Order: sequence, then C-alpha cells, then structure tokens
Amino acid sequence: MRWNEIDDSLCGLARTLGVIGDRWTMLVLRECFLGTRRYDEFQLNLGAAPHLVAARLKKLVEHKVLEKRRYQDHPPRYEYRLSERGHELYPAFIALIGWGEKWLKSPQGPATIRTHKGCNHRLHIVPTCAACGEAVTARDVKATMTPRFAAERAKRLAAARKATA
Amino acid sequence: MRWNEIDDSLCGLARTLGVIGDRWTMLVLRECFLGTRRYDEFQLNLGAAPHLVAARLKKLVEHKVLEKRRYQDHPPRYEYRLSERGHELYPAFIALIGWGEKWLKSPQGPATIRTHKGCNHRLHIVPTCAACGEAVTARDVKATMTPRFAAERAKRLAAARKATA
Repeated sequence: MRWNEIDDSLCGLARTLGVIGDRWTMLVLRECFLGTRRYDEFQLNLGAAPHLVAARLKKLVEHKVLEKRRYQDHPPRYEYRLSERGHELYPAFIALIGWGEKWLKSPQGPATIRTHKGCNHRLHIVPTCAACGEAVTARDVKATMTPRFAAERAKRLAAARKATA
Repeated sequence: MRWNEIDDSLCGLARTLGVIGDRWTMLVLRECFLGTRRYDEFQLNLGAAPHLVAARLKKLVEHKVLEKRRYQDHPPRYEYRLSERGHELYPAFIALIGWGEKWLKSPQGPATIRTHKGCNHRLHIVPTCAACGEAVTARDVKATMTPRFAAERAKRLAAARKATA
C-alpha cells in the first residue's frame, strides 16, 4: 500500500497521518501550542530550513488545521493560528508528549511544565469515557472492524497473496 | 536542526517522534492494538513491502515498545506483543484516530467501532485532569518552558541568526 492509497483509507488513523504524520509537521504544531504564530518565529524556534517550515505551514492551512491571517498591511505580513480543528489535536499532542516524558526521559528533565489552569496542579491527563466517566486504557476497549474495513483488508490480503504467488 | 539532534532534544514530543514518528510505524501499532502479532500478518494486513514492516518491528523492539516472543520452536517463529510501554501509547493512538474520524470523515464511515467494555457505550474519550477530574482542552493548560529548554531554543536561534548573517 502506498501513502496516496492510505490517505483514502477507511482508517481514521491513516487519514490523520496523511495530514500530520510527519515529524516536522508535529513540531510545527508544538510551536503553535506554545504560542508561535509568525513564519520567521517558526523557522527560528525549530532551527529548520525555510522550505521545510513553509511547506508544513502551507499543508496545515490547506487542511484547515491552521488559519492564515494578515496582521500587517504594509508590507503584508501573515500569522498562522490554530483553527478549531487544530485545537482539537491537543489531546493527541499532549498524549505523545506525555509518553515521551515518561518512557524516554531526558536526563536534563522536561522541556515544559504544564499546569491545569482550573486547579493549578501539574497536568497529568487521564483518558476517560464520556458516557461513564471511568478511566480508559487499551484493555478496556473492544474494537470491531466494520464490514467495509474488513472487506478492504481482505481485498488487500488477496492482492498481496496474488503478487507473491 | 536535524533529526539526530531532535532525538536528543529536551522536548518529549521530539523524543516520542524519534521512536514512533513515522507513518508506517504508527500503522504497525494500529495492527498491534487490533490484535495482530505475527510478522506475516502485519505485512499482509498493511499491504506493505516486507522490508518496511521488518524495519519498523525491529525498531519498536529495540525501543521496548514491542516484545518479541518465540511461539514455536521447529522452525523457530516469533510474535510481537505490546509491552507496557507500548500499551501506554493507546491514549495518543486513540486521540489521533478520533481526530481523523471527526475532521476527516470518510464517506464510507469509520473503519472500526470502539466500545468501552466497562459500560458498553460507544467510546468517546474525554481527556481529564488527574488532580481535579475536569475535562481539559488546550485552552485550560499553561505551559511554561523550563530554563534549560528556553536556553536550548535561544542557542538554536543564535546559531540560525549567525548562519544567515
């Protein structure tokens, strides 16, 4: 399977990765959540080549994760802000960071300290079920493939078997 | 900044992405969460070239996200299972999928239906604060850079300015 096929896949993960499944893109998003808005700030904070940053910002605007707004007229200058869609990437983002901080500890400590504004405690996120409020781990979830997804996999399997026959 | 520098960065996100920030790796993990364990099943379910799958499995074992276990002696055969570290990627994984299902809807519907075993409702995850139990969004979090991370960024900024001077 190639990536242009994956983007069209029924799998929500594959579609998400088609938009943000690139390490520089994720770091651009980190900057957005840290408050970075302007092109040159993204570039300098990431220490990345200009074309790398420009391509990521452009793609994120195309996919409506970021909104490009003019903040100065002469000369025209633009800033990039998270859309509602972009803001909603926060749970994924914070989960990825939290995992790295726990399992791939830096000997020099964390990069940022996150605090929950509501209660002023150091932030630790617990994924909970919207229906019953209980904490949820992988072991608490039953995943059932829909008939279409099962058929998509079966088709791929048949094609793979045919190719190796 | 290059990726070998990013891996060493203080940023937990950058370190996480150094291990799993690759789209095929994430799809291998999706398979793990769906119950796939054996090498040929990974390859067939993903429809990916054998060397792509083998390289991802090897890396995930090296980083202790997966455990390789012998399940047959003659001939020797191995399966790959999520370690505790791997299981703890679930919140990130489910958040990425959920975002794709909401914002990048497939006209053919979702790939899997997830149910919370505890209450039997369709799974919707709410990130909550471990200290106070309230739901948390990006707007509820204050992130403060640690002095070291701020210094790392300042150093990178100075290097970038010098390079373009």
